[in-house]
Amino acid sequence: MQPQFSPDFAKADGLITCVTVDSSDGEVLMVAYMNEEAFRLTLETGKVHYWSRSRNKLWKKGESSGNMQELVELRVDCDLDAVVVRARQSGPACHEGYKSCFYRTVDADGALVVDREQLMTPEEMYGK
Amino acid sequence: MQPQFSPDFAKADGLITCVTVDSSDGEVLMVAYMNEEAFRLTLETGKVHYWSRSRNKLWKKGESSGNMQELVELRVDCDLDAVVVRARQSGPACHEGYKSCFYRTVDADGALVVDREQLMTPEEMYGK
Repeated sequence: MQPQFSPDFAKADGLITCVTVDSSDGEVLMVAYMNEEAFRLTLETGKVHYWSRSRNKLWKKGESSGNMQELVELRVDCDLDAVVVRARQSGPACHEGYKSCFYRTVDADGALVVDREQLMTPEEMYGK
Repeated sequence: MQPQFSPDFAKADGLITCVTVDSSDGEVLMVAYMNEEAFRLTLETGKVHYWSRSRNKLWKKGESSGNMQELVELRVDCDLDAVVVRARQSGPACHEGYKSCFYRTVDADGALVVDREQLMTPEEMYGK
């Protein structure tokens, strides 16, 4: 699948924002970033790729944990600088072992509360 | 509600990424950015505030369209640089008059396809 349009990579230093949601229930799994290569590889291979801002490199999701993301649908926003990726996620999306990176909510007192189940420990995921 | 934790505003020039979802059905409405003031005002007032990167100013959602967002829940990601805001949205979230800014999908040929209903025209929203 070759894109016939181009997202606006120029707006934010070559990156667009990607919200990845679980294709089965719509839950937001993670927020990450794509450069042009990650975007193209995601469409070409059907496996979700990102650009890691912290490691400054192309990042095929699941390359170290094995928990890959299969592209189901790609949606684009009004000004073409963000995408929603609907994906089939195998295992936890979060490196902390939760299904979603958003496993904490802010309670009425403004404190962080974990209200999701940890599926694996990071040690189990990365074999450390 | 005063936050007892602080998101990591330093990572990306003072901004965190905010994914706003409809509290009734979980649909992703928009992706925007918050600086520290927008984050604080969102928690204090219960009305969702952003930082507009294009206009370079604080942006209370709905200030010109009237389509405000009422905060229902705030979730924080593992590395504290992104939030998911669950909000009650009145009217379209998108300035193009759609419920969600993500009203287009990429089809098998890589073309953009509008597959959502336009609720209002921009002229109806902004009275131009």
